[in-house]
Amino acid sequence: MGTGGARVVFDRWEGRYSSAMSAVRSSAVRDLFAAADRPDVISLSGGMPDVRRVPREAVQRAVRDAMRHDGAAALQYGSSEGSVALRGTVADLMAESGARLDEDDIVLTAGAQQALDLLARVFLDPGDVIITEGPTYVGALQAFSAYRPRVECIPLDEHGMRTEVLEETLRRLGPRGAKFIYTIPNFQNPAGVTLSASRRRRLLELAHEFDIPVIEDDPYGRLRYEGGHILPLRALDPDVIYLGTFSKVFAPGLRVGWLAAPRPIRSKVLLAKQAADLCGSSFAHAVIERYMTGTSWRRVLVDLQSAYRERRDAMFAALAEHFPGDVAWTRPEGGFFVWVTLPAHMDTKPLLAEAVEHGVTFVPGSDFFPDGRGSNCLRIAFCYESPEKIAEGITRLAEVLEDKLGLYRSFVAAGVMPASAGSGGGLA
Amino acid sequence: MGTGGARVVFDRWEGRYSSAMSAVRSSAVRDLFAAADRPDVISLSGGMPDVRRVPREAVQRAVRDAMRHDGAAALQYGSSEGSVALRGTVADLMAESGARLDEDDIVLTAGAQQALDLLARVFLDPGDVIITEGPTYVGALQAFSAYRPRVECIPLDEHGMRTEVLEETLRRLGPRGAKFIYTIPNFQNPAGVTLSASRRRRLLELAHEFDIPVIEDDPYGRLRYEGGHILPLRALDPDVIYLGTFSKVFAPGLRVGWLAAPRPIRSKVLLAKQAADLCGSSFAHAVIERYMTGTSWRRVLVDLQSAYRERRDAMFAALAEHFPGDVAWTRPEGGFFVWVTLPAHMDTKPLLAEAVEHGVTFVPGSDFFPDGRGSNCLRIAFCYESPEKIAEGITRLAEVLEDKLGLYRSFVAAGVMPASAGSGGGLA
Repeated sequence: MGTGGARVVFDRWEGRYSSAMSAVRSSAVRDLFAAADRPDVISLSGGMPDVRRVPREAVQRAVRDAMRHDGAAALQYGSSEGSVALRGTVADLMAESGARLDEDDIVLTAGAQQALDLLARVFLDPGDVIITEGPTYVGALQAFSAYRPRVECIPLDEHGMRTEVLEETLRRLGPRGAKFIYTIPNFQNPAGVTLSASRRRRLLELAHEFDIPVIEDDPYGRLRYEGGHILPLRALDPDVIYLGTFSKVFAPGLRVGWLAAPRPIRSKVLLAKQAADLCGSSFAHAVIERYMTGTSWRRVLVDLQSAYRERRDAMFAALAEHFPGDVAWTRPEGGFFVWVTLPAHMDTKPLLAEAVEHGVTFVPGSDFFPDGRGSNCLRIAFCYESPEKIAEGITRLAEVLEDKLGLYRSFVAAGVMPASAGSGGGLA
Repeated sequence: MGTGGARVVFDRWEGRYSSAMSAVRSSAVRDLFAAADRPDVISLSGGMPDVRRVPREAVQRAVRDAMRHDGAAALQYGSSEGSVALRGTVADLMAESGARLDEDDIVLTAGAQQALDLLARVFLDPGDVIITEGPTYVGALQAFSAYRPRVECIPLDEHGMRTEVLEETLRRLGPRGAKFIYTIPNFQNPAGVTLSASRRRRLLELAHEFDIPVIEDDPYGRLRYEGGHILPLRALDPDVIYLGTFSKVFAPGLRVGWLAAPRPIRSKVLLAKQAADLCGSSFAHAVIERYMTGTSWRRVLVDLQSAYRERRDAMFAALAEHFPGDVAWTRPEGGFFVWVTLPAHMDTKPLLAEAVEHGVTFVPGSDFFPDGRGSNCLRIAFCYESPEKIAEGITRLAEVLEDKLGLYRSFVAAGVMPASAGSGGGLA
């Protein structure tokens, strides 16, 4: 917590807080924003898009158009669903990805994060079971944890969620044994892997057989740098709850995402949204709608894609050159993240302070599990820094790892510790 | 619900929703936004500020300044607390009201509504007792209801919350018998009344004696049209949790409000905010900060104040001229709302459809209580329509009331019903 600091403050309200607050997780990712602010530190931790490539004139033009077109509406309270014009734009975007729906299927949210919170609020009572990938998005774990579910994590390999383990889990839990299955099928955060087309079909078959709603979180779908587009789950099944965001195709600073869901779920989400913030920002909706009108946003996106591809390739090259042989990593075809697996007995959390001292940040793997697993893993991001800085960051990180691994290897050689290299495409 | 419509839809997820969703209230206010959109209907229902008076050029200038000054930061994710520059502006605004604090005491939220939701999340478990005014803000009841508290309503008179009833209630509940006291001291929504200076002191004494946090919700504090400024509770006690908003001094379409709270509570609120939406809109923060720099916003506010004052006076004049003698109403010195009390056996909910037919809307009084009380009351707003339309709206509403009251009076005359005029300064 940025505000926690080192000072000890007597809390006269201690014992008065809700049970939810004792369950809610803090996030190491957020704490790192502070560390990453030092100019000498290379940030391989945060998933910040490179908004420096979004032309400020395009934003100003969008604001001018929005003010001229319907300025009073943009400054006023809006409906809980959000701007109908922007929902139309969202429907068009989703049609391009292969999912057919119309603006009435959509609720605009304060980033996809709010959609996660609202869905948790709509579905979860304490003790309910939910199914996620393991590792999974730390913000989803944060959003869900306030509602105190029991989280079943399904492991990943290079083709995404291992559906045979999902099947075992569902058989064990029985029909309707979980409130929902949460998946990030494209360039998963943090693992970088993509759910294959055949596993997408299998996941939907299983969800149908066990009668469990599926939440498809797709922030990175348009950030593919190689390979062919795979249809989203929502394109294969209209009952899938789909989450999208403008944070990666435009800018996260406007905090607009969306949720597409069947009508009964949508009406519950709208009630929850009214209680949470009345309505979204009409201003942000109008500005984004204008920004997404015309074609210049596509040029910006192509520019972003090629920048991210170059950075990813720089990271791949530096990993191959500098990382020790007993460390494995994933090779994402898109998105922002690479997942690194160290030998099983390593712990990446204490490594972080050393890494910051060496001028580089990452996110420890255990942040992406609800239960402390993943401690021998870490996430690195290639979205934010230049290719040169990424190469330098990987070099620095390799030094830190090499240091620790040297010690580890001598223990293994002495028979004190069993040998166990990272495997499974770099997945723990 | 705008999306509920008349179609009956089979819900295959029935029985899967959380207990919170069965507790969350829908709001008649929101439903009325649709009705109020018909051009022939005069809206005395919604609390929409008159954003047509905010110069669009000033907004565009603020955006241009924000983009030039630090455009990349405005498009990026921000800290959970929100922009430090805007928090500084908030601290300055609060100093003008008499409350001394600094930017670190403040968390920016998605309107004050999000602050209500986050505070409920931080403090409430099902069954916890909270204390509110009765009537109180419908959005607060919505936010709180998801966490299933038991709500104790303290009645109001023309000097605000009746602190002698608050004292009785606190004695009955005992020390720490409630999680918090929620009050809207200035130009209360919906009652329009203002908590007197002496009752503010008394409320704080009682809160201290019974060791209960106080939440001061102050959206209308700067919209005073007569009488002298009264110090906010937060100016008298730094432990008070204060909620403010830019929705009324600038525009609700940007969805930015704030919360000032002691450090331990603030750090819990920040954790809850991270789970709810990661962070606020850096873009909105930057634009508002630029808009509030310099003095032109003060000219806009003075213009708004004089427009609202004129509308309020038009409403007062029309009420005095057209409303029946057995109806009472409040006489707010600021804000947006007048509270109307009909004889005790009247029910304003079924009157609403008739009023809409007559081309005028209001909000039924029972919306502002957690338990169906207030059914003989209604809220009318003078913030949105022109003085002429307000006069015409009151005339139309008077016709609807006269109709019903004629019937009521004949029952009373026949001895079928007891006589009971509105009293207590128009408060039920």
